[in-house]
Amino acid sequence: MSEKRVTILGAGLVGSLLSIFLRKHGYGVDIYERRADMRSTDMSAGRSINLALSLRGLKALAAVGLESKVKDICIPMHGRMIHDLKGNTELQPYGKHGEYINSVSRSSLNEILISTAEEEGVAIHFNHKCESVDYNNGISQIRNDESSFEVTADWIFGADGAFSALRNSLLKTQGFNYSQNYISAAYKELTIPPTNSGDFALEPNALHIWPRGEYMLIALPNLDKSFTCTLFYPRIGRQSFEELTEAKDVIKLFQDAFPDALPVMPTLVEDFFNNPTAGLVTVRCSPWVKGKTALIGDAAHAIVPFYGQGMNAGFEDCYVFDQLISEHNEINQSMLSAYETLRKPDADAIADLALYNFIEMRDKVANPRFVLQKQIEKELFRRYPDKWVPLYSMVTFSEMRYSEALKKGMHQQGIMDQILDDQSVPKNYLDFDYEDIISRLA
Amino acid sequence: MSEKRVTILGAGLVGSLLSIFLRKHGYGVDIYERRADMRSTDMSAGRSINLALSLRGLKALAAVGLESKVKDICIPMHGRMIHDLKGNTELQPYGKHGEYINSVSRSSLNEILISTAEEEGVAIHFNHKCESVDYNNGISQIRNDESSFEVTADWIFGADGAFSALRNSLLKTQGFNYSQNYISAAYKELTIPPTNSGDFALEPNALHIWPRGEYMLIALPNLDKSFTCTLFYPRIGRQSFEELTEAKDVIKLFQDAFPDALPVMPTLVEDFFNNPTAGLVTVRCSPWVKGKTALIGDAAHAIVPFYGQGMNAGFEDCYVFDQLISEHNEINQSMLSAYETLRKPDADAIADLALYNFIEMRDKVANPRFVLQKQIEKELFRRYPDKWVPLYSMVTFSEMRYSEALKKGMHQQGIMDQILDDQSVPKNYLDFDYEDIISRLA
Repeated sequence: MSEKRVTILGAGLVGSLLSIFLRKHGYGVDIYERRADMRSTDMSAGRSINLALSLRGLKALAAVGLESKVKDICIPMHGRMIHDLKGNTELQPYGKHGEYINSVSRSSLNEILISTAEEEGVAIHFNHKCESVDYNNGISQIRNDESSFEVTADWIFGADGAFSALRNSLLKTQGFNYSQNYISAAYKELTIPPTNSGDFALEPNALHIWPRGEYMLIALPNLDKSFTCTLFYPRIGRQSFEELTEAKDVIKLFQDAFPDALPVMPTLVEDFFNNPTAGLVTVRCSPWVKGKTALIGDAAHAIVPFYGQGMNAGFEDCYVFDQLISEHNEINQSMLSAYETLRKPDADAIADLALYNFIEMRDKVANPRFVLQKQIEKELFRRYPDKWVPLYSMVTFSEMRYSEALKKGMHQQGIMDQILDDQSVPKNYLDFDYEDIISRLA
Repeated sequence: MSEKRVTILGAGLVGSLLSIFLRKHGYGVDIYERRADMRSTDMSAGRSINLALSLRGLKALAAVGLESKVKDICIPMHGRMIHDLKGNTELQPYGKHGEYINSVSRSSLNEILISTAEEEGVAIHFNHKCESVDYNNGISQIRNDESSFEVTADWIFGADGAFSALRNSLLKTQGFNYSQNYISAAYKELTIPPTNSGDFALEPNALHIWPRGEYMLIALPNLDKSFTCTLFYPRIGRQSFEELTEAKDVIKLFQDAFPDALPVMPTLVEDFFNNPTAGLVTVRCSPWVKGKTALIGDAAHAIVPFYGQGMNAGFEDCYVFDQLISEHNEINQSMLSAYETLRKPDADAIADLALYNFIEMRDKVANPRFVLQKQIEKELFRRYPDKWVPLYSMVTFSEMRYSEALKKGMHQQGIMDQILDDQSVPKNYLDFDYEDIISRLA
C-alpha cells in the first residue's frame, strides 16, 4: 500500500499538533499555511498573545510527548486576582487542590509544535494560501507569491481557524448550516512591562481581572516579566471603542475604571492606538465532515475566549481524532463520522459556556451573591468531592466531556439559585445545610 | 446638484422593482445582473417556477402602477385543495370574504418589471457578475465575459438573492452576524401538463396539497393550463431523495403517496431525473446597512417558501424603502437606518412563520384537531371580524406588520390550545362558546 497523503490547511496550534498525531499513524502530511514562518519573522510585542493552557490541552500534548517541553514555557496561575475600583485585590483560587491554569505564549507554543512536526517529517509550506477546496476530490487550490496550483490528497483537514478557507468553500454547498455571531464587546491588547528593577509589576501567578460590568480588563503574565493585558469593551455605541479617539479619552477611562493599572502601563496610549481592535465571534457549523474533508479546531467551532478553552478544545479535538484513528485502524468515513458525532455536542457546549463566562467574569465576580455561591460550592466540593464538582473545575481540571459538564453545571446552578433565592439565606457560607444541598442533586 | 447614482446588484423581482421606485425619486440607476436577459433566453419548462402573489406584493406593484398589468397574468387560488391518500379532495378556503392568492409565473412577472425599469431609464447590464463590494467607498467589482472593472456609486443595494455577493463581502467584516440554516427537506419541481383536450387536469383555482407528514406534494396552476408541482421530501437519510435513484423508486412513491397525481403526470420520471434537487435555506443577518450599502429582499432575509411570502416580503421591503425616501427627502444614513430598524423584526417574523407553516402544510392540514381549529377561527372571524383575524389572513390579506401578526397569532394560538386541550371539547365547531373565547383575548 502506498503512503496515504493528508493535506492540512493551517500551521497554527491545532494544525501543527494534528500533523504530529497523523505522522504517528504513518500518514504523509503537507501543511499549507498562509502566514510566514513565525520562527524567522519578528513578531511585534503588541501582537504576542498569551493563552491559558489547562488539563485538556496538556493531555493532548502529553500524548505526543511534548508536555514537559511546553510546561517549561508556562507560568502557573492559581486563581483570579480581582481588582476593585479602589485598587484593592483579592485572590479567588481556581481549585481546591492547588490546581492551576497556565499562561503560555501562543507563538512560543506554536514554534515548539511546528519544529516537532518538521522533525517528525511533516512538510510545512509557509506563505501558501488556500483559495478553495474541492471536497469531493480532495483537491486544494493553493496560491503562493508566484503561482496558483492544485494539491490532491486522500484527505484534507481544515485547521485554518475562525475564517477557514475550507469552511468558506463548504458554505456554498447545499445543506451546510452555519452561523457567525459577534458579541457586543470587542478587544484590544495592551501591555504592562516589567518594572524598572526588572520584576513583574503585579503578582505573576494569577490571572488578573478588573471586572466592571459592561466591560473588563484582564492581564496574563509572560516569561519576560511583562503582562499582556486585554481590554474588553463595547464595539459600537455610547461608551465604546468608537468613542475612544484621543489620548485623553483612553487615560480618562483608565483613571476612572482601572486606577491601579494605569501607573504600570507607561505605553498605554501608544499601545492603544497602535494595536488593532478586534471582534469576538462564535462560529457554529455542520456538517464538519464532507466528502474527503473535515474541519477541526476554530475552523469547526470558533468560540469567545472567556473560558480559556479555545486552544484546549482544539487540542482535545486532535486527541479524540488520534484515538478514533487507532480504533478504526485508519482514517475513513466511519472514523470521521464518529469524530463529528462525538465532538459536535462538546463544541456547542463549550461555545455556550464561553459566552456565559463573559458575563461571569466582567460582572458576577464582583457580585456578593456570586462570591457567596462560589464559597458554598467550594465547601460542597471539599465535603463531597465525588458528588459536587464546580462547573469551572469540570471544564478546566477534568476530562469530562464539555457537554456533560454543561449539563451537570446547569443542574447544580438550578439548585444554587433555589438556595440563594431563599429569603432566610445565611450570610456566612459555613451556616448552610450542606447535607440538604447535596440531597437535592438526586 | 448632479444626479446621484445607485448601483443595484441583481435584476430579479426585488432588484428590478426597487429600481423603478428609485427612478421615481430621480436617482440614476444601474443594475448588474449575472444571468442573461430572460426576455431573449429560452427558459426550459421544468424550471419556470410559479409564485403566490398576495396583498403585500400587490400593494407595492400598485405603487408603481403595475397592479393591473400583473393581475392579467395571475390565476386566483381561493383555497387549499387537500388530496388524501385515496384521492378524495376537500377545499379549505383561504378567507371568509372570497379572498384569494395569485399564482404567477416568476419569469413573466420579472419580464414585466425589467421592461418597465428600462422604460423608466434604468440601465440593466446582463451577464455582469458582482465579485465583491467595497462598502466604505461604494465600489462594486464587476466581471463580464471580457473583463473585470470597478463601478463607483453613491449607494449600492444588494438585491442579489439568497447567495448575495454583497452579503458575501460583508460576511468577512467584523460585527457582521450571519446564519444560514437548511431544513431537512429539499425540493424538486415536476409538471402536470394540460389534458389531451387542452384543459387543466385539476381544479385550476386552488393551491393543491398532498400532505403526508414528513413530506408533501403541492401544485400551482399556470396560464398554459399546466400545473407546476413541487415535491418536498427529506434531503438525506432513509426515505429521502438520496434513495430515489431509479424510475421504479419514483413511481412507487407516487403510487403509494400521491395515487391521484400519478395518472396526470405523464412526464414524471423524465422530469424527476432532469430537474435539480434543491435545498431550502433560511438566511438571517445583521446589519443590513453598512457604509454605502444595504441589503434587500432575499439577500437580507431568505426564507423557506411555505407561507408564500418570500416575494411579497421583498416587494414590501421596496414599498417601505420608497416611503422612507419620501419621508427623508433622499437616501441617507438615517433613512437607511430607519429601513433596517423597521424591516428587520418583520423579516425575522416571516422567517419563523414560514418555517412553522411547513409543519402546518405537510402535516396539520390533514389533522382533525387542526381542521376543527380552523373552523372555530373562521367562525370567530365571522362573528368578531375586528377582534379575531386568523394568522393566515393577517399575514396574507392584511398590511399588518409581520412581527405584529406573529405576536397576535401566537396569542390566539395559546387560547386555541387551551380550548382544544379541554376534555369536554365539542365535536362540532358551532357548539363552542364564542363569547367566552373572545373574552380570553383581553
